[in-house]
Amino acid sequence: MTPLFERIQTSFQQQGLMHTLGAQLQSVESGKVVLSCDYQKGLTQQHGFFHAGVLTSIVDSACGYAAWTMMPEDKEVLSVEFKINLLRPAQADRLLATGVVLKSGRTLSVCEGTVTDATGERLFAKMIATMICR
Amino acid sequence: MTPLFERIQTSFQQQGLMHTLGAQLQSVESGKVVLSCDYQKGLTQQHGFFHAGVLTSIVDSACGYAAWTMMPEDKEVLSVEFKINLLRPAQADRLLATGVVLKSGRTLSVCEGTVTDATGERLFAKMIATMICR
Amino acid sequence: MTPLFERIQTSFQQQGLMHTLGAQLQSVESGKVVLSCDYQKGLTQQHGFFHAGVLTSIVDSACGYAAWTMMPEDKEVLSVEFKINLLRPAQADRLLATGVVLKSGRTLSVCEGTVTDATGERLFAKMIATMICR
Amino acid sequence: MTPLFERIQTSFQQQGLMHTLGAQLQSVESGKVVLSCDYQKGLTQQHGFFHAGVLTSIVDSACGYAAWTMMPEDKEVLSVEFKINLLRPAQADRLLATGVVLKSGRTLSVCEGTVTDATGERLFAKMIATMICR
Repeated sequence: MTPLFERIQTSFQQQGLMHTLGAQLQSVESGKVVLSCDYQKGLTQQHGFFHAGVLTSIVDSACGYAAWTMMPEDKEVLSVEFKINLLRPAQADRLLATGVVLKSGRTLSVCEGTVTDATGERLFAKMIATMICR
Repeated sequence: MTPLFERIQTSFQQQGLMHTLGAQLQSVESGKVVLSCDYQKGLTQQHGFFHAGVLTSIVDSACGYAAWTMMPEDKEVLSVEFKINLLRPAQADRLLATGVVLKSGRTLSVCEGTVTDATGERLFAKMIATMICR
Repeated sequence: MTPLFERIQTSFQQQGLMHTLGAQLQSVESGKVVLSCDYQKGLTQQHGFFHAGVLTSIVDSACGYAAWTMMPEDKEVLSVEFKINLLRPAQADRLLATGVVLKSGRTLSVCEGTVTDATGERLFAKMIATMICR
Repeated sequence: MTPLFERIQTSFQQQGLMHTLGAQLQSVESGKVVLSCDYQKGLTQQHGFFHAGVLTSIVDSACGYAAWTMMPEDKEVLSVEFKINLLRPAQADRLLATGVVLKSGRTLSVCEGTVTDATGERLFAKMIATMICR
């Protein structure tokens, strides 16, 4: 584990929601964070697929942490806003959520997020998010 | 319980995620649905407030069901996309998520959502969402 | 003309695009700004209605100026991001674009914008925008 | 000129706004359209840079036409909604707006758009847009 991974992991473990969803931190590099989340009945919408809220929760976290990897160590990151397009029903055993920094600024960072199946080939959702450093 | 409430309630109870989050259906009228969600450790981000993903999950459901109240009974509703602005840290005992239909079309509906505290006075988040009927 | 109207008007007249579009400043109050724009062939999309870009341009300006009315006088306002839903083809003689502040913060402000016909009754578009003060 | 370019060009020339802004169709391929727009005083915001409305107008058109390249010939394309993040002041002699299809569906298409300087290296804005075919 790199120091950057450990820094993110420590914060990630304090996110009660990530624990509730069973999400896990997969990888961390400067400007890019990947989370995973395995299918379970408790994460579904009414048709039995992953709920849009699950996709959104994990990719918001991935984007926030991606932004955080490029911020000074004494700063916090908060989501200002995000928008997500749901491209197809999220029918999969496992979701991968990837957050990538598009622009890292002193105050604001803009990130792009994707949610795919475990192979990374089937794109379920695309996010663009604004994060604030403070 | 009105027939409309029952129709939404039946679908709502099939959303595993709403059960996992402890969300509850509060009220249903044509074009407007309200959900609630009580605070628990399992719903937090790293600073102990409600995670943005929780706000988003419940207000997405509220918007989707609000749109559904205005669709023909044999149709399903799916989220196409949404955008949410997080106005302040969501520090509250209980969240109320309200979805209201701004425009109900044959194929697409546009909804506005708000997330507030239990009094309805403290606005935590504002959503605009596009839903599809099919 | 109030001093607030004059302050906005001075900046508005420096927006070359507003002149090009024939947009006009209608009213200014703290937290709310209204612009108008009359129909002309040079503002259309391929079906002869107002182009989405016109609606977006004027309501972005209305939102930005609405945010600016609540900022210290020595500060500038810039659009961080916005999202707009186009509810129906914008077929009208005149558009009214209204920007209203939903949350005014020290750094960021969140505004809601609407574009309607001249009566205010026909809603063509709804915007939510994030503005930065600096 | 390919038949696809001609089809888009014919529609593009009917967009009065594109003429007003001085925008030009640069290239067309299946799922991707590029427009350009040269700097002039009539396209500015109050600090003399390109107005966000210009960036939005041209990249909305680029996204719409990109979606249209993948639709049946007898169908029209309309913007349902879009969201744009403005990453830095758009200070350039020429803007390039590129629309790319992320998902082409029977009813809805999702596109990503970018606005850069003429070199393509300086990214001014990122859009994600939903288009409807009908």
